[in-house]
Amino acid sequence: MRANNRKDNELRPVTFTLDYCEYPLANVLVEIGKTRVLCCVTAENRVPPHLVGSDSGWVTAEYAMLPGATQTRTPRDISRLRIAPRSSEIQRLIGRSLRSVTDLQGLCGLSLTVDCDVLQADGGTRTASITGGWLALWLGCEKLVKQNIIVKNPVKEQIAAVSAGIVDGKPLLDLDYSEDSNAETDFNMVMTNTGRIIELQGTGEKRPFTRDELTSLLDMGTKAIAELCRLQREVM
Amino acid sequence: MRANNRKDNELRPVTFTLDYCEYPLANVLVEIGKTRVLCCVTAENRVPPHLVGSDSGWVTAEYAMLPGATQTRTPRDISRLRIAPRSSEIQRLIGRSLRSVTDLQGLCGLSLTVDCDVLQADGGTRTASITGGWLALWLGCEKLVKQNIIVKNPVKEQIAAVSAGIVDGKPLLDLDYSEDSNAETDFNMVMTNTGRIIELQGTGEKRPFTRDELTSLLDMGTKAIAELCRLQREVM
Amino acid sequence: MRANNRKDNELRPVTFTLDYCEYPLANVLVEIGKTRVLCCVTAENRVPPHLVGSDSGWVTAEYAMLPGATQTRTPRDISRLRIAPRSSEIQRLIGRSLRSVTDLQGLCGLSLTVDCDVLQADGGTRTASITGGWLALWLGCEKLVKQNIIVKNPVKEQIAAVSAGIVDGKPLLDLDYSEDSNAETDFNMVMTNTGRIIELQGTGEKRPFTRDELTSLLDMGTKAIAELCRLQREVM
Amino acid sequence: MRANNRKDNELRPVTFTLDYCEYPLANVLVEIGKTRVLCCVTAENRVPPHLVGSDSGWVTAEYAMLPGATQTRTPRDISRLRIAPRSSEIQRLIGRSLRSVTDLQGLCGLSLTVDCDVLQADGGTRTASITGGWLALWLGCEKLVKQNIIVKNPVKEQIAAVSAGIVDGKPLLDLDYSEDSNAETDFNMVMTNTGRIIELQGTGEKRPFTRDELTSLLDMGTKAIAELCRLQREVM
Amino acid sequence: MRANNRKDNELRPVTFTLDYCEYPLANVLVEIGKTRVLCCVTAENRVPPHLVGSDSGWVTAEYAMLPGATQTRTPRDISRLRIAPRSSEIQRLIGRSLRSVTDLQGLCGLSLTVDCDVLQADGGTRTASITGGWLALWLGCEKLVKQNIIVKNPVKEQIAAVSAGIVDGKPLLDLDYSEDSNAETDFNMVMTNTGRIIELQGTGEKRPFTRDELTSLLDMGTKAIAELCRLQREVM
Amino acid sequence: MRANNRKDNELRPVTFTLDYCEYPLANVLVEIGKTRVLCCVTAENRVPPHLVGSDSGWVTAEYAMLPGATQTRTPRDISRLRIAPRSSEIQRLIGRSLRSVTDLQGLCGLSLTVDCDVLQADGGTRTASITGGWLALWLGCEKLVKQNIIVKNPVKEQIAAVSAGIVDGKPLLDLDYSEDSNAETDFNMVMTNTGRIIELQGTGEKRPFTRDELTSLLDMGTKAIAELCRLQREVM
Repeated sequence: MRANNRKDNELRPVTFTLDYCEYPLANVLVEIGKTRVLCCVTAENRVPPHLVGSDSGWVTAEYAMLPGATQTRTPRDISRLRIAPRSSEIQRLIGRSLRSVTDLQGLCGLSLTVDCDVLQADGGTRTASITGGWLALWLGCEKLVKQNIIVKNPVKEQIAAVSAGIVDGKPLLDLDYSEDSNAETDFNMVMTNTGRIIELQGTGEKRPFTRDELTSLLDMGTKAIAELCRLQREVM
Repeated sequence: MRANNRKDNELRPVTFTLDYCEYPLANVLVEIGKTRVLCCVTAENRVPPHLVGSDSGWVTAEYAMLPGATQTRTPRDISRLRIAPRSSEIQRLIGRSLRSVTDLQGLCGLSLTVDCDVLQADGGTRTASITGGWLALWLGCEKLVKQNIIVKNPVKEQIAAVSAGIVDGKPLLDLDYSEDSNAETDFNMVMTNTGRIIELQGTGEKRPFTRDELTSLLDMGTKAIAELCRLQREVM
Repeated sequence: MRANNRKDNELRPVTFTLDYCEYPLANVLVEIGKTRVLCCVTAENRVPPHLVGSDSGWVTAEYAMLPGATQTRTPRDISRLRIAPRSSEIQRLIGRSLRSVTDLQGLCGLSLTVDCDVLQADGGTRTASITGGWLALWLGCEKLVKQNIIVKNPVKEQIAAVSAGIVDGKPLLDLDYSEDSNAETDFNMVMTNTGRIIELQGTGEKRPFTRDELTSLLDMGTKAIAELCRLQREVM
Repeated sequence: MRANNRKDNELRPVTFTLDYCEYPLANVLVEIGKTRVLCCVTAENRVPPHLVGSDSGWVTAEYAMLPGATQTRTPRDISRLRIAPRSSEIQRLIGRSLRSVTDLQGLCGLSLTVDCDVLQADGGTRTASITGGWLALWLGCEKLVKQNIIVKNPVKEQIAAVSAGIVDGKPLLDLDYSEDSNAETDFNMVMTNTGRIIELQGTGEKRPFTRDELTSLLDMGTKAIAELCRLQREVM
Repeated sequence: MRANNRKDNELRPVTFTLDYCEYPLANVLVEIGKTRVLCCVTAENRVPPHLVGSDSGWVTAEYAMLPGATQTRTPRDISRLRIAPRSSEIQRLIGRSLRSVTDLQGLCGLSLTVDCDVLQADGGTRTASITGGWLALWLGCEKLVKQNIIVKNPVKEQIAAVSAGIVDGKPLLDLDYSEDSNAETDFNMVMTNTGRIIELQGTGEKRPFTRDELTSLLDMGTKAIAELCRLQREVM
Repeated sequence: MRANNRKDNELRPVTFTLDYCEYPLANVLVEIGKTRVLCCVTAENRVPPHLVGSDSGWVTAEYAMLPGATQTRTPRDISRLRIAPRSSEIQRLIGRSLRSVTDLQGLCGLSLTVDCDVLQADGGTRTASITGGWLALWLGCEKLVKQNIIVKNPVKEQIAAVSAGIVDGKPLLDLDYSEDSNAETDFNMVMTNTGRIIELQGTGEKRPFTRDELTSLLDMGTKAIAELCRLQREVM
C-alpha cells in the first residue's frame, strides 16, 4: 500500500496559498503532500542580451532548494561556486514550459522571473514548481494588466505538471521521495488542460521501459494534469 | 506615529512556529512583524579543519535571502559567484553569537549548522535570525540529548537580539524597513536574558551618535531582549 | 525538400571512426551529416564520494563544444566561470543513459569518463554523443576485459539515440541545425536495439503537441535507432 | 605586565609615513606597534550602479592581508576563489566609517577607493586601517582641491579607531595579537575627535560582558582616539 | 636513436589540413608527428575595452587541451574554475606572436580570435599552435579582403615556431613528449621566414645552459622555421 | 638621455632590506630604482599532490601587485575571480627559476612558498622578484639548516635576473616603466653568477629582432647579473 492509503493513480493533497509573501508581483505557495515550493514572480524592465532591440519580453525561471528542505542537508550552491547541475536542468525545464505558453511579444519588453524555492522536498518538486509557477505567472500578468502595464494577459494556455513512475512493476502517479528512490522508471509530464504535451522527460533509471508502459504513464498523467488545472482554476 | 500605532519602545508582534519543516534536526519559523526567517538546525559528524584532532564540536550559521523576500528582487549569490558581503557579515555575527554561549566540548565532535533563510525582509532580519536561531539550536540540542548522542544540552545561556536606532532624533526599538532606511543610527544588540552583552554593532549611518544616545538604545534593547527571552521560554 | 534530397524518415550519413586518438582507453569519432563529435573514454581508479566504501564503479559523461563548432563562435565555459546550462543538461542525459545499461558492480571500482567534445555542430549533437559514446564505452570495456582488469563487459544492452521533430506540421527524423531552429516540437530519444526506451525528452518549442504526433515521432525514432545499432555493430 | 611595560590604557607607538608610494593620489603607511598597514587612495571617474544618474560620488574600501603578514602564511583570496569573510566584514566597516564623515555630493561624481593592505599583522589591523585610511582620504581630497577637481574638502569630521578588550578580567587598550587571542571581550571603536561614535563592534568572545565593562572600554577608547586624532593632525 | 630514425635536426612530418571545419572564418588542422591542433579563426565586430574609441582592431588567442589529448586524462578548466596556468601562459604567447606581425589598424575595428584546441598532444603543442594559427590568421584575413570587409591583408610577416632542447647533452629539434620529459633544456622559438626573432622562451629545466648551447639551438630552430614557412606557403 | 643620467648598460640603484617583516621564515625587500618588491619565504609541512609519497620537497612562487603599485589602480584578482594572466605567467617563471637551482630532495618533504608582492611597479618587477626571491630562498634555507630541520642548504647555484630591451634602436639595460612601454623588444634573463642561462624570455613587441641584437642584450644582461649576484653576496 502507498502512504495514506493512496491509490495508484491518485494525487497527494494539493493546496495553493496565494499571496504568502507581500513584495513580489505575484506568488503562490504550492503544497503537494509534504512537498512545498514557494513560487514568486517579479518583473524587471530589461531583456536578456539576445532580445535587446526586439519588441519581445522574456520569461525565465530559477529553482533552488533551501538547505533544510531535504532529509540530509543540501549545501548551498554558493559554497561550491556552481549551481547544482540538477537545479540547472530543472530551471531550464520550468522556463521552457512557461515560455512555450506565453506570448513574449505581449510582455512589452518586460522580463518576468519565476523563482521556485523548495522549502520542503518530498518528491515532485519540479512538477510542483511548474504547476505553482504557472499559476503565479498567470496571476502576475493579471496584475500587470490591471496596472495598465500590459494590454492583455499574454499567457495563452493553462498548463500543469505531474510525475509518474513504475515502482515494483506497477505504474504509480505523483511519486513521493521514498517511491521515487525505488522507481524503475521516472517520468515528468507537462501538459495543457486538454492533454496536449508541452514537455516530456522520462528516464529508465533501473531498466528500459516499453511503449505500453509509456502509454499507461501518459494516460495517468493526462488525467492528473486536468485535475491540477481544475484546482488552479478554483483559486484564479 | 509608527505603523500600527506602535510605541517607540515596543516590539512588533513576535511568533515562533516550531517544526515548520519535517527533516531538519530542529527548526523555528520566526516572524517579527512582516519579517519572516526560517531557522533550521542540522547536525553533521565532522568538524572544520582547524578542530580535527581536538575533542571540540562546532556551531556555524549560514544566512541568505530568498530572491522574493525584498521589495525589489534580490539576485541569488550563485548568479554573481560570490556571497553578498552583507550576508557574509551577518552569518559571521550569528555564528559568533551562538558559539559564545555553547560549550563546544559538549557537542562530542558534532558540527551544528544553523541555516537562517529570510522568506520576507521588513527590517531586523539579522536579529530575528539570532533570536530564532538560538531557539532552534537549543531545541536541536535537546533532541540530541534525548537521542543519547550528547550527554547534556551544551547551550549555556539564553540569548536573543534586537535592533534599535535613532530616527528623526528619536530612539526607536525594532526598526522596520522604512524606519531603518531613514535611521541616523542603526544598532544591533545581542544579549543574555539578564542583559549581559554578547555582541554590539552600532553604526552612525547619517551622523555620529553620543554616549547618551548609546545609553538610551542599550536600555531599550535590554528590556526588549528580556521580553524576547520570555517569549522563547513560552515555546521551549 | 530537405537538404540532399533526404526523406522525412531518413538518417543523415553516419560514420564511426575508431581510434582517431592514440591515448584514451577507447575513442570514437562519430559523424552524422556535418555533426562531428569525438567520444573518448578514460578509466580512473577512484569513485565519486557517494560510492566510496561500496563495490560499485561509476560511469560519467562530460560534454562541451569547441568554440569554432558553431556558426557564431561559442565562448568557452571558463571565460564565464560556469558550465553552459545546456551542456550541463546534456552531459547529465548522456551519463544517465550510459549508466542505465551498465552493471556498475562489474567495473571493479573503476570510474569511466566519456568525454564528448563537439568538433562541429549541425544539430543532433546530444544524440550523436550518446550513439558514439555508447560505442566508445563498449569498446573501452572490451579492452579492460582483454587487459584482465575486469572479468566481463559490464555493458548490458546496446543503445543509440536520435532526434526527431515536427517542422511545418510534418514529422522529420534527425533534424539538422536549420530544421531544428524551425521545429515546432523537438524530441530526443534514447532506446535499446529492440525499441525499449531509456530516455525521452520532448519539448513543444512553439506549440504543444498531441499524443498522435508523439506516436509518429516514437515510431520514426525506433526504426532509426535500430539502424544506428546495426551500424554500431558493423564496427564492433 | 604587557610587552614593553605598556600601561593598560596606553597606545603602542604610532607612526604615519606619508607618500610611502609614488603613484596613488595619496597614501599613508600606518604603523601601530608591529602592525603595519599601507593605505592608498585612488580616484576614478565613475560611480557604482546605484548612483548612476545622481550627483553623488562614492567612497569605498578594500582590505587584504599579504600572505607573509601573519605568523602562519595566509593563503591569497584568489587561491580559494572567494574573499576571506573576515576581510569582507572589515572592508565594509572601513568603507561605512569613511563614508559617514564624507559629503558624497561634494565629490563631483568621483569614486575614491581606499586600499588597506596589511604588510604585518600584530592585532588592531582594522582600526589601524581606519585611522590611516581616514588620513589618506583627507590628504587625497586636499590634493583634489588643489588640482581644482573638487571645490572643497568633503571630509566633514576627523575620525580614528582603536581596539580595546578585557583580558584576564582587566580592560586593556590597543590589544596586540597575543592579547587579542586571549581576550574575553573584543571591542572596536570608531569615533570623532570629540568622542562621538561612528561605529561600535563588540564581541563577548569567551563570555558576555556587562554594561560597566562596556563603559570602561568606551572611556579608554575615547581618550585614545583623541590622542590618535592629535597624531593625525601633526602630519596633516 | 630517435623514434622513426629521425635525425637530431629533423622535423617530424608536418601536414596542414585547410577547412577541416565549415563554420569558422578560416581554420587549419595542423599535425606535427602525433601532435594535432585545430586552429580556428573567428571575427567579431568589437574590440577589448582598452581599444574602444580607437581605430585599432585586435588579435587574440585561446589555447586548450581536450581531456583525451594526453596520456592521462586532463581535467577541464571549468571543473577547477580556473584556466590551467600553463594554458594561460601559452595563449598569451600565441596572441603576442600573432599581434606582433599584424597591422592592428588594418583590421577596421574587428577582433580576430584564434582558437587553438589540442586534439592530441605529443610535444610541441604551443609551437604547432603558432605555426598553424598564423596560417589560419593569414587565410582568414584573405577572406576578409575578398569579402571587402578590410582593404588589404594586415598580416605583415610570415612566422612559424618550433621547439628544440638538449637531451642527454645533445641538441635535438622538435621534441616529442618522451624527449621533452627528459630534456635538460627546453626552448621555444618563434621567428620570421628570414630568421628574425619574434619570441624566445628557454628554460634550463634540469641544469643551466651555456651561450654555445643557445647558439646551437637557435641555429637549428632558424633552419626548421624556414622549412615550416615553406610548407605554409605550399598551402597558402 | 635616460632618467638620472643612467648609462645604457647601467643598473638602477639596488638595495636589499633583510628582515623587513617579522613572521616569515625569511624575507627580503628588494628595491631597484622605484620598483619595490617584498619577497617572503614560508615553509609548510606538505607537498603538492604529484609528489605525495616521494621524498621530494617543493619550491613554488606567487606573484601579485598591490592595487596602488601602478600608475592607474590595478584591480585585485579576487574582484574578477581569476588571477591576472600576466601574474600567472610571472609566478610560473619565478617558480621554475628557483626550482631549477634547488635540490628538492634536500628539502626533506617541505614546501617553500616564495611570495613576491609588488609594492611599487616601475618596470622589471619580475626580474626583481627573482633576484630578491632567490636571496630570500637562500636565507630561508640557511635558517632551516640552523634549526636542524634540513641538513644542508639545498640551493645549488646563485642566480639573479635582469631585463633589457631595444628602445629607439638602442639596447638598454634594466628598463624602467616609461622605457618598457616604448621598447621595440623586451627581454628577461635569469642567469647564474657565471653567466650560464636559467631562463630567457624575449619578445619582439613592436618588431622582430636580429641575432646580433640578441647577442648585445645577452652580453649586457650577463654583466649585470654578475653585478646583482655580487650585491646579493654582500648581504648574505
